[in-house]
Amino acid sequence: MKPNFSLRLRIFNLNCWGIPYLSKHRAGRMERLGDLLNLESFDLALLEEVWSEQDFQYLRQKLSLTYPAAHYFRSGIIGSGLCVFSKHPIQEITQHVYTLNGYPYMIHHGDWFCGKAVGLLVLHINGLVLNAYVTHLHAEYSREKDIYLAHRVAQAWELAQFIHHTSKKADVVLLCGDLNMHPKDLGCCLLKEWTGLHDAYLETQDYKGSEEGCTMVPKNCYVSQQDLGPFPCGIRIDYVLYKVVSGFCISCKTLQTTTGHDPHSSTPLSDHEALMATLYVRHSPPQQNPTPTQGPAERLPLINLLKEAWTELGIGIAQARWWATFAGYVIGVGLLVLTLLSVLVAGEVTSDVAVLLWTPSVGLILGAGAVYLFHMQEAKGLCRAQAELQHVLGRAKKTQELGLEPQVAELLGQQAENRVEQ
Amino acid sequence: MKPNFSLRLRIFNLNCWGIPYLSKHRAGRMERLGDLLNLESFDLALLEEVWSEQDFQYLRQKLSLTYPAAHYFRSGIIGSGLCVFSKHPIQEITQHVYTLNGYPYMIHHGDWFCGKAVGLLVLHINGLVLNAYVTHLHAEYSREKDIYLAHRVAQAWELAQFIHHTSKKADVVLLCGDLNMHPKDLGCCLLKEWTGLHDAYLETQDYKGSEEGCTMVPKNCYVSQQDLGPFPCGIRIDYVLYKVVSGFCISCKTLQTTTGHDPHSSTPLSDHEALMATLYVRHSPPQQNPTPTQGPAERLPLINLLKEAWTELGIGIAQARWWATFAGYVIGVGLLVLTLLSVLVAGEVTSDVAVLLWTPSVGLILGAGAVYLFHMQEAKGLCRAQAELQHVLGRAKKTQELGLEPQVAELLGQQAENRVEQ
Repeated sequence: MKPNFSLRLRIFNLNCWGIPYLSKHRAGRMERLGDLLNLESFDLALLEEVWSEQDFQYLRQKLSLTYPAAHYFRSGIIGSGLCVFSKHPIQEITQHVYTLNGYPYMIHHGDWFCGKAVGLLVLHINGLVLNAYVTHLHAEYSREKDIYLAHRVAQAWELAQFIHHTSKKADVVLLCGDLNMHPKDLGCCLLKEWTGLHDAYLETQDYKGSEEGCTMVPKNCYVSQQDLGPFPCGIRIDYVLYKVVSGFCISCKTLQTTTGHDPHSSTPLSDHEALMATLYVRHSPPQQNPTPTQGPAERLPLINLLKEAWTELGIGIAQARWWATFAGYVIGVGLLVLTLLSVLVAGEVTSDVAVLLWTPSVGLILGAGAVYLFHMQEAKGLCRAQAELQHVLGRAKKTQELGLEPQVAELLGQQAENRVEQ
Repeated sequence: MKPNFSLRLRIFNLNCWGIPYLSKHRAGRMERLGDLLNLESFDLALLEEVWSEQDFQYLRQKLSLTYPAAHYFRSGIIGSGLCVFSKHPIQEITQHVYTLNGYPYMIHHGDWFCGKAVGLLVLHINGLVLNAYVTHLHAEYSREKDIYLAHRVAQAWELAQFIHHTSKKADVVLLCGDLNMHPKDLGCCLLKEWTGLHDAYLETQDYKGSEEGCTMVPKNCYVSQQDLGPFPCGIRIDYVLYKVVSGFCISCKTLQTTTGHDPHSSTPLSDHEALMATLYVRHSPPQQNPTPTQGPAERLPLINLLKEAWTELGIGIAQARWWATFAGYVIGVGLLVLTLLSVLVAGEVTSDVAVLLWTPSVGLILGAGAVYLFHMQEAKGLCRAQAELQHVLGRAKKTQELGLEPQVAELLGQQAENRVEQ
C-alpha cells in the first residue's frame, strides 16, 4: 500500500522547431529555452523537434545541475526529435517507432525520414511509479486533402496500444507531445477513449495562456497563415494528458501556455507554444467497486470511434493497394519498353535514341519497384492496425450477443480500469 | 487474490518453413500440421514462417472448431510469418516490429523484407492473466562470419524490453519462437537474464525428443549440412520460455520434440522440429520477501552480458558508419563523374561514350544514396539500443558507488521481480 501523501508535479512540454539550417534563430531560442528550464526547475521537461543531437547535448550540459537525468530518443534516419530532461532519476527507458509515417518520396514533407516514435520513461517518485510518454505524430499539411490521415489514425492507435500495454503497473500515466491532431479529431478521441487519459486543458482549475488553449497562434511571428489553414485564430495540437490508477487521484491545478511572444525577447521560443502544467497526485481511499464498469451509454463512443477508425484505415488500405497496383503496371510497361529498346539496339535501328531512352526506362522500373514495395508494406501496416481494431470490435459484439454486460465492460473497459478519480 | 488452483497448459511451437514456391511439400505439410493440431488439441499453438496468408486462412478454417481464436501478425512487405491458434478467447493483441532486421540489398537472404516482429496475446484463463509472445529473429547464415550479429543482439534486447514493459501485470509469461540463437549465445542469455524467463528444455521433468533438445537435426530430410554449419549433430534455436509472478509457481512436466521424421508420413512437418510442452501453474503462498533480491554473485552475469552486448552493438555502429561514409564517398565520385560527363556532352567531345556512361553514373549515385540513408538509419537503431543498455549500466554503477545494495537489486533485478518459484 502506498503512503498517504500529496505529490506536486510540474511538467513542461514544447515542440522546439529545431530544424538545422531551416528554423530561424535556432541557437538563440535553444539558449533561451535552457535559461527558462533552469529558472523554472520543472520536474519533467519533454521536448519535440530537437532534430539536432548537438542541440540536445547543448541543453544537457546547460541543464545538468537542474535536470540531472536526460535522454534523447534516436530513430529513423534523422531521429525522432524527442528528448526529455528530468529532475528525478530515470528508472527505465524504452521507445516504440511507429510502423507508418508518411511517404519517402514526399521529401519536402520529410516526416518519413524522421522515424516518428513514442518514448517512455519510468520514474519512481516518492514510491509512486510514473510512466511518462513523449511523442510527435505525423504532421497535417492540408486539412482539406489530408493524404496522411490513415497514417495518423494508425499512429494514434499504436500510441494508445503502446500506452495501454506498457502502463499496466504504473500509478500515474503522463503523455505529452505534439499529436498534430485537433481535440475532436478521430485519432485524438480514440487515443483518449482507449487509454482513459484526460486532457489537462479541459480539466485544469486555472488556465492562463493563449485563447482556447491553442498551441499554434497567429500572434507567433514564426507561424504563417498557411500553417493554420482554415483556423485563423489558432489550433490546439500539443497536449498534456494524464491519468492515475485507482487508489490515487490527480488534478491539474494550473495550466499555462506561452502566447506567441516572449516578454524578455523579440522572438518566441518556437513556432509552437509551450505547455506548463502543475499536477497534484494524492492518495485516495480505494473505490468500493475497484473495476469501474462503463454503462452502454458511455461505451458507445468508444465502439463508434473504433468503427470510424476501422473505416478510415480501410480507405487507406484501398489507396495503398491502388498505388501498389499502379506501380505494378508501370513496372510492366517499363519492362516492355526496355525489351523494345534492346531489340532496337540489337537491330542497330535508331540506336542513339534507344540508348538515350535506357536511363529513364531503368529508372522507371527501379522507381516503380520501390513504390510497389513501399505501398505493399503500407497496406500490411494499415491491415495490422485494422485487424487489432476488428479484434476489439469482434469481442464486443460477441459479448453483447451473449448478453454478458459485465464482461463487455471488462473487454472494452480495460482502458477504464485505471481511470482517474476526479 | 487468485483462487487456489492448478492449471495445465499444453503449448505447441513450430517454425513451419512455409515459403510459397520454395519450401518443399508445403501444402501437404500444412495439411498434416492441421491434422496434428486438431488431434492434440493444445491450449496454444504458436507458429513461425507461415509466410503465406492463404496458409494461415487454410489452417484457421481447418482448426476453427478446436481453436476458435486465431491471429495472423502482419508486418513488413512479406509479413512477419507469425500466427497463433488458441483454444481460449484472446483478450488483447498487439505486436512490435524490430527496428533492425538485416539489409534490403541482401535480397537472397530476404529477412529485411519480412518485417520480423514479436506478437503478444493476452489471455485470461481461469482468472489468470497469461501473456503469450511469439517471435522469429533474424537468421544466422554463417556462424563464422555473422554479419547480422549486431542486429540479432539488438533484436534480442528489443524483445526483452518489449516483454519486460508489457508483462508487468501478467501472472504467467510465455515466449515461444525461433530465436535463431544457440542457448549460450549472447542475445539468448541477455533475453533470459533481463526478463527472468526459464528455458523449458532445461527445466522439464520429462524430456522426449531429439538429442540435446535440438530443433534442427541432420536426420530431417529438409535440413542440409550447410544449415547446421559447424554443428553436424544439430542445433537448438527454437524455444519455449516461461515465468510466473510471485504467488504462483510453474513447472514443465513434459517437453517433447519431433525427431526429424513423421511416423505417419515419409516427410517431416518442417525443416525445424516442433516443440510440445505441458506446463503446470499452481497457486503458491506469497514469499516472505516479496521482492527477491539478487546477491552480487548472481547479478554479475547480467552486468557482464549488458557490457558484452554494448560492445557488440558498438562494433555494429562502427561498421554501419563505415558503410555510410563509404557510400558518401561513392556519391561524391558519382557526382564528379556526372559533372565531367555533362561537360563532355556540352562540349560535344566523345558524346556517345558520355551518354552511355550516364546510366551507370546516375544509378551509382541513387544506389549509393539509398545505401547511405539505410546505414545512417542502422547506426541510429544500434545507438538507440546501446543507449538503453548504457542507461541500465549507468544506474547500476551509480548505485554501486553509493554502496546502496538493496537499490541495485531494485534497479537491475527488476527482471527478477516476477521470477519463478520453482
